[in-house]
Amino acid sequence: MGANHRKFWGWGIEEADLTPEEKEDLEKRMEKQFDLSGLKTNAPPRLEEINLPKSKISPPDTLSDIFSSEPYDRAAHTYGKAFPDIVRAYQRDFSVAPDLVAFPRTEQEIIDILDWCSSEVIAAIPYGAGSSVVKGTEPDVGDGYKGVVTIDMKNLDQVLEIDKISRAAHIQAGIYGPALENALRPNGLTLRHFPQSFEYSTLGGWIATRSGGHFATLYTHIDEFVENLRVITPKGIVESFRLPGSGAGPSPDRFFIGSEGAMGIITSAWMRLQDRPKFRENAALTFPDFLSASEAVRSLSQAGLYPSNLRILDPNEAWFNGVADGSVAVMVLGFESADHSLEAWMNRALECSRDHGGSIPDKEEERIGMVGAWRDAFIKMPYVWEALVAMGMITETFESAITWDRFPEFHETVISETQRIMDKVCGGGFVSCRFTYAYPDGPAPYYSITAPGKKDSLLEMGQEIKSVISETFLKLGGTITHHHAVGRYHQSWYKKQRPEGFGLVLESAKRVLDPAGILNPGVLVDPIR
Amino acid sequence: MGANHRKFWGWGIEEADLTPEEKEDLEKRMEKQFDLSGLKTNAPPRLEEINLPKSKISPPDTLSDIFSSEPYDRAAHTYGKAFPDIVRAYQRDFSVAPDLVAFPRTEQEIIDILDWCSSEVIAAIPYGAGSSVVKGTEPDVGDGYKGVVTIDMKNLDQVLEIDKISRAAHIQAGIYGPALENALRPNGLTLRHFPQSFEYSTLGGWIATRSGGHFATLYTHIDEFVENLRVITPKGIVESFRLPGSGAGPSPDRFFIGSEGAMGIITSAWMRLQDRPKFRENAALTFPDFLSASEAVRSLSQAGLYPSNLRILDPNEAWFNGVADGSVAVMVLGFESADHSLEAWMNRALECSRDHGGSIPDKEEERIGMVGAWRDAFIKMPYVWEALVAMGMITETFESAITWDRFPEFHETVISETQRIMDKVCGGGFVSCRFTYAYPDGPAPYYSITAPGKKDSLLEMGQEIKSVISETFLKLGGTITHHHAVGRYHQSWYKKQRPEGFGLVLESAKRVLDPAGILNPGVLVDPIR
Repeated sequence: MGANHRKFWGWGIEEADLTPEEKEDLEKRMEKQFDLSGLKTNAPPRLEEINLPKSKISPPDTLSDIFSSEPYDRAAHTYGKAFPDIVRAYQRDFSVAPDLVAFPRTEQEIIDILDWCSSEVIAAIPYGAGSSVVKGTEPDVGDGYKGVVTIDMKNLDQVLEIDKISRAAHIQAGIYGPALENALRPNGLTLRHFPQSFEYSTLGGWIATRSGGHFATLYTHIDEFVENLRVITPKGIVESFRLPGSGAGPSPDRFFIGSEGAMGIITSAWMRLQDRPKFRENAALTFPDFLSASEAVRSLSQAGLYPSNLRILDPNEAWFNGVADGSVAVMVLGFESADHSLEAWMNRALECSRDHGGSIPDKEEERIGMVGAWRDAFIKMPYVWEALVAMGMITETFESAITWDRFPEFHETVISETQRIMDKVCGGGFVSCRFTYAYPDGPAPYYSITAPGKKDSLLEMGQEIKSVISETFLKLGGTITHHHAVGRYHQSWYKKQRPEGFGLVLESAKRVLDPAGILNPGVLVDPIR
Repeated sequence: MGANHRKFWGWGIEEADLTPEEKEDLEKRMEKQFDLSGLKTNAPPRLEEINLPKSKISPPDTLSDIFSSEPYDRAAHTYGKAFPDIVRAYQRDFSVAPDLVAFPRTEQEIIDILDWCSSEVIAAIPYGAGSSVVKGTEPDVGDGYKGVVTIDMKNLDQVLEIDKISRAAHIQAGIYGPALENALRPNGLTLRHFPQSFEYSTLGGWIATRSGGHFATLYTHIDEFVENLRVITPKGIVESFRLPGSGAGPSPDRFFIGSEGAMGIITSAWMRLQDRPKFRENAALTFPDFLSASEAVRSLSQAGLYPSNLRILDPNEAWFNGVADGSVAVMVLGFESADHSLEAWMNRALECSRDHGGSIPDKEEERIGMVGAWRDAFIKMPYVWEALVAMGMITETFESAITWDRFPEFHETVISETQRIMDKVCGGGFVSCRFTYAYPDGPAPYYSITAPGKKDSLLEMGQEIKSVISETFLKLGGTITHHHAVGRYHQSWYKKQRPEGFGLVLESAKRVLDPAGILNPGVLVDPIR
């Protein structure tokens, strides 16, 4: 495994975890924040502490070399990276571990695995790199199956072809973010899809979950970059024409983008790429409050300027992440281009921002500091979350999207309902908000909470808070998720959001593409067994 | 009916048809072009010449006041505006006329009509304004139905609500283009969706067919402007959340966008709007040949400048439409904004264009003249097509999309195959090409042909040409249609393009949403009766 050790219980590598000193600092910070004392960060689980259930199935002889029942593999494929995942990992509860993990190397092996699973009624869970925060790959499939196989796509990790003329590449689904960018870089090209999970997530996972990427406006979701898809279903391979645009019936790609492994396994895609940027304009601004910052974002996103970066942090979010002192909202604004200098773009964007109360800090180091502090915090965040949970805090994120006309009421209600339920369940808590993406017709607000929990009832406390906030989203007309997908975590709310008739479409599609109902059961479509 | 008379046999109004003098000029031009003599333009059909089949069904008493069996209504709802439609109209052949035309005024009346059609096994054809060039609304449904009702949506024509904050409006599907823009104008807003059919086409039709609109780059299809949809299916109403963006499963809207009336009837949509532009930069350039112009388009569409207009005409297309003399290709380039002046954008775009051999005519009147000539020709075109057919010419358009790497070979092959088949079938012909839309990864080339036919075998000759060109598109990996939809005309080729597994999805969706199979039978999904 080289110098770094991928954690089986949480995000990333052991070597990048918070140091004991950092954990102690965090404990002190939380004690001060919530007037607590004696916080202790639990130690992460060790493999020998885990009592895995006995594997209920054995692979067929012909495929046995691509299957593993090693404890590390089974444990590492049990959870994603959601709050309840971290809680259960620290509780040493890996009772939903898959029976087997498959590491196919070819499409044919995937076909063979699915054939075997269909005929034996074994659930098959497509798996990229396990960054799901919605239980999207959790082998929790009920009693209708003989067992569960998780299909890890990491061996299908090649960039198969690069077309520099059209700026596109044919890429296998199992490739991780950094490997993908490394393969494109020598050609002067980039996908520029940098979700927070970039290091440990895959192209196939991004497409299957409608991941949100680098661009804060215009090309927010991975959806926009998909030129075609190749998907293996139990009924055969679905492959669309590779096209820049089409009007031939409803888009087949859009049906599989976001299908979360319930309809088939994406094995490769032609993806639209960008030239690597040569010109950049960056700015950081402060605003007296979040609503004026949001009005600036509205004006900017309706101006047709298309900044690549346009994020705002409310005062709490800016303070919590060390970006500002808690008295101001912060905007991080950026333009980039491989083609032209961007003064005209940035000048107009700054005008818009100033019109809504934005101001640029006098000192350059402050401006650069805010951008850098946010980027560093953003990358480190998943490690911090785990440490918070390990000391008994509830820490969760909730993201939605809503049109501008409804945003002020939406925001006010979400904040007050969130505070109310944290006060009730935890006796207090901290909520902050940022915009991760903005559209001409509305923003995608992203809420983060931290609240003091009780170590032995974290799951129940977290669930109560999650439920209230999710119900509030739906009641106010927001989506249950803007870019975190549905998974098992959001399924009950998703079913309320989804038009009933489209639910019928998904169910009937599932029945015809996956007649045995083996693919990621319980995600998008209720299990048929 | 006011001063203007909507033609029952073709495009637009009688009053805007070519004058006798214009028809004579066109005859002479064609005689010269193809070395013919004695061309005569047939007179358009008159209603009293039409022998309509007897209507096979009667409406239920409770709904009788919204149904018509008037000859004008039945004849006017028989055809779209494709070449074979004009041919048959001039042959006075209206044998596929619908038995009844319904003009519902409310959603409930639509529900009642569909209930009646389902229980009586009567085909129901959703109808906007009949601009289909792919037989999308032709009541040609085979023998499995007791009769055919065409459901004309023109009475659902209101803008129900305008949200100026988010720049969006809730609009009924039956509204025509001009009425829609008139309703938005007082609010400083515009949908800016101006397909060639703008005057006589509807919002619902645009959405159901993935219409291509005003913007040559970025927001090419109507798809991008749909915030939500409300669709009546025989199994109930499908209504999505109104959202600026979402990642909650595959997009329900994208499944109904392009569903061509086969899954349900779109009754209203929240649509994203634009502020009316205040700043404009326009230019017209000439290029020595079409491929250098296309390279300029590639460079422009990969530069991240997003011009609203970026059309190129090959020398033939420019000559045929009176834009240039046939020795040069022409580019029409434009930027627009409600927010900022556009010098920086246009300057860079002109640099890109010059780098690929583009030059701006010295005289301003020439520059303005080219843009104006193209716009005038564009609007007048459908009337010219009809006159050409009426004098026995075959005139058709074929549009596709293809990635840049494959475009040169695609173009060369399409041109040579088109010329070959016209030479074979007609002893000659004229083919021209333009780009209507351009993407960073490829253009949407649009081919127009005119060839001398024989009046008594126009249909067969046209079909032979259509088949060869369509097969050529597919063989070379182009889409069978970029923005003209599938209809009955493209169905056989669409089925070759569409991934088989997605065909299964559509069929199963059709079975569950429209169990009696009454909705627009034969479009997208083969008739189940």
